[in-house]
Amino acid sequence: VSGIPRIAPEPADAIRCKFDRLKQGSGTHSPSIATIRRDIPELRIEVDACFLSNPYATDLFMERLDRDLIATGRLRDVLEFYPPQNYDAAGYISQVSGIPPDFIFPGNGASEVIQAVIQRFAGPIVALPVPTFSPFYEFAPAATQVRFYRLDEAAGFRLDVADYCRFVRECGATTAILVNPNNPNGYYVARDEVRALLSSLRDLSAVLLDESFIHFAYEDDDSLDMVSSERLVEEFSNLIVVKSMSKDFGIAGVRAGYGIMQPARVQELTASGYLWNLSGLADYFFRTYGEPGFRTQYEEARRRFIRDSDSFFAEARAIEGITVYPTRANFMLVCLADGWRSFDFAMEMLINHGVYTRDCSDKVGLEGPFIRIASRSRTENVRILHALRQTAVTGP
Amino acid sequence: VSGIPRIAPEPADAIRCKFDRLKQGSGTHSPSIATIRRDIPELRIEVDACFLSNPYATDLFMERLDRDLIATGRLRDVLEFYPPQNYDAAGYISQVSGIPPDFIFPGNGASEVIQAVIQRFAGPIVALPVPTFSPFYEFAPAATQVRFYRLDEAAGFRLDVADYCRFVRECGATTAILVNPNNPNGYYVARDEVRALLSSLRDLSAVLLDESFIHFAYEDDDSLDMVSSERLVEEFSNLIVVKSMSKDFGIAGVRAGYGIMQPARVQELTASGYLWNLSGLADYFFRTYGEPGFRTQYEEARRRFIRDSDSFFAEARAIEGITVYPTRANFMLVCLADGWRSFDFAMEMLINHGVYTRDCSDKVGLEGPFIRIASRSRTENVRILHALRQTAVTGP
Repeated sequence: VSGIPRIAPEPADAIRCKFDRLKQGSGTHSPSIATIRRDIPELRIEVDACFLSNPYATDLFMERLDRDLIATGRLRDVLEFYPPQNYDAAGYISQVSGIPPDFIFPGNGASEVIQAVIQRFAGPIVALPVPTFSPFYEFAPAATQVRFYRLDEAAGFRLDVADYCRFVRECGATTAILVNPNNPNGYYVARDEVRALLSSLRDLSAVLLDESFIHFAYEDDDSLDMVSSERLVEEFSNLIVVKSMSKDFGIAGVRAGYGIMQPARVQELTASGYLWNLSGLADYFFRTYGEPGFRTQYEEARRRFIRDSDSFFAEARAIEGITVYPTRANFMLVCLADGWRSFDFAMEMLINHGVYTRDCSDKVGLEGPFIRIASRSRTENVRILHALRQTAVTGP
Repeated sequence: VSGIPRIAPEPADAIRCKFDRLKQGSGTHSPSIATIRRDIPELRIEVDACFLSNPYATDLFMERLDRDLIATGRLRDVLEFYPPQNYDAAGYISQVSGIPPDFIFPGNGASEVIQAVIQRFAGPIVALPVPTFSPFYEFAPAATQVRFYRLDEAAGFRLDVADYCRFVRECGATTAILVNPNNPNGYYVARDEVRALLSSLRDLSAVLLDESFIHFAYEDDDSLDMVSSERLVEEFSNLIVVKSMSKDFGIAGVRAGYGIMQPARVQELTASGYLWNLSGLADYFFRTYGEPGFRTQYEEARRRFIRDSDSFFAEARAIEGITVYPTRANFMLVCLADGWRSFDFAMEMLINHGVYTRDCSDKVGLEGPFIRIASRSRTENVRILHALRQTAVTGP
């Protein structure tokens, strides 16, 4: 590990150029690490700090899968046969969340849930705080108008719930979206405020609450207990909650997520063809997730990761030349010193240090040089911090 | 193996009742074997002849996966990280089909492809030969009218292309569907006739050709070469071809399929959110599928399975008391003797012989006692034939 460029200037330019081309081909998303490795094999990526997940939970799940499916040879059954229909998985999720299964819509990743609900239950006018996860506006049908509520950089990109509710009324929105914690900055809206928002907007046709990163948030510093608002669907009939398993369980390749909403909405989606959208492995994941013993082990992995992440964010805040915004997610939004282009900074981190971060220059609602950096394992975080210090100190 | 009931009458009644309840909960689809095993553990299923796949291809894929992912520990990468976006898989499929990647829409199983195209590109009036795979009418939006073209039992449920085209005109259809080979009876429309149909219907907004079972069809008895019409998308701009990998490669749990259609239609689907619908394993499957060496091995497994299936169908035709319709798929539609209820026959096969078959009493366009039986491995087929003979001989 060193600050000296590992790759000579000319090959570095070539890599920069290849990476830029890959990025253009990925739309408003980052090229996956598999794609980068295939197309830029000369680049050695050592830490993927673009990827948002809990690596300790991946360890846990893989150990379990080795024992259950590999050692026993049962992996074949999972891949060969049709998985059960979705209501089986809804039953397992219900055991964890306490919400009746008919409120639960299992999905092929949270992105399928977002796609399904944004196209059927949102609109005609949707209010959306930005910057945020782009599918909320990209997947909306052409006839749906998306009104951006711009978060203020000076306020650390925090969301003021009362002000947002005013905006919702002013723009005549029929649907309001809240991503909590938000991506890419990690702001967290406390449960009391979520409830206040829902009370204020209970006449809308839908309120979409995306809790994809809620496993990394907490309100009590000692217990680090998870604070989800998913059970509020039983109280607020317009609420739709989106949950991802990719981040908290570190299994993005499995594609597993779910939505929580009124049974009539679940039925409408199911009738339109969402029957076998879970793979055999996603079904296996949800079955495992339903087991109390597994969740006890997961809770340890979750708390350990939160503690490591908090230390990581604190150390990053001490680095001169960058600004780190408040976060209760497993990533931080970083503003670079004046003069930096975020693409250049991300490329320095990648080429000189093997650390892959998210250049946020394509994010609607972010003006200026921003990158998003994920917390990874404790040893990886040490490498990320080293790379950050070395890069920030060189100046643009 | 014996014809004597393995389970005493009273428990058999209880099983029948439990199975009926499971079936009610599965809509117009069969309960999966995993669901049956969980909910009726006292029932020992020895052959799943409801499941439509090539078991030799599953063997081949599992051997390959063991070597590539299990032995190397690379399975973790496949499950942990986001898979590349869909255009990567489109590239691999293009190498096999010879169709440019921008015509290819990779899907989370053929059922996702059917769902996507039936909801966006079909309608307002859709012509559909029945009996057939029910999602073609179940997944259609409420505003779409589906007009059934009833296949004639006396003609062995064969499709007369000229007559079907006349029907399409008479009912004013804007979309025509052709499932080839058809499920549940396995009729096959030769490539020349498919072309004639496409020429006659080239002014429709869409012709949906579902080739999910095409790998089991052939026109030349010696070569057993596969005869797909997928490349005709370059000639007929309204053609949409649906392909499943679940059946031919025996990997239903992986959820992998694709559609072939005009690039503008692929773009419309992608823009609406179909970006990460492939799991890491589906992406791995398509990558492997793109390798010529793997396909050479697959071709052997395909021909071996066709030969075994043809022997199986011929032996079944010789059984008294049942009628087997012509098929070029990997299953046969069986009409039972007068007096049988198809549910009772299927239950006898299941409870007394451990052979799970598909009771077709819920199929639109089938009146009478029909069951569908899949060809499985050579040794399993021996068991199925034994069970069929024993059950048919007892009479209703």
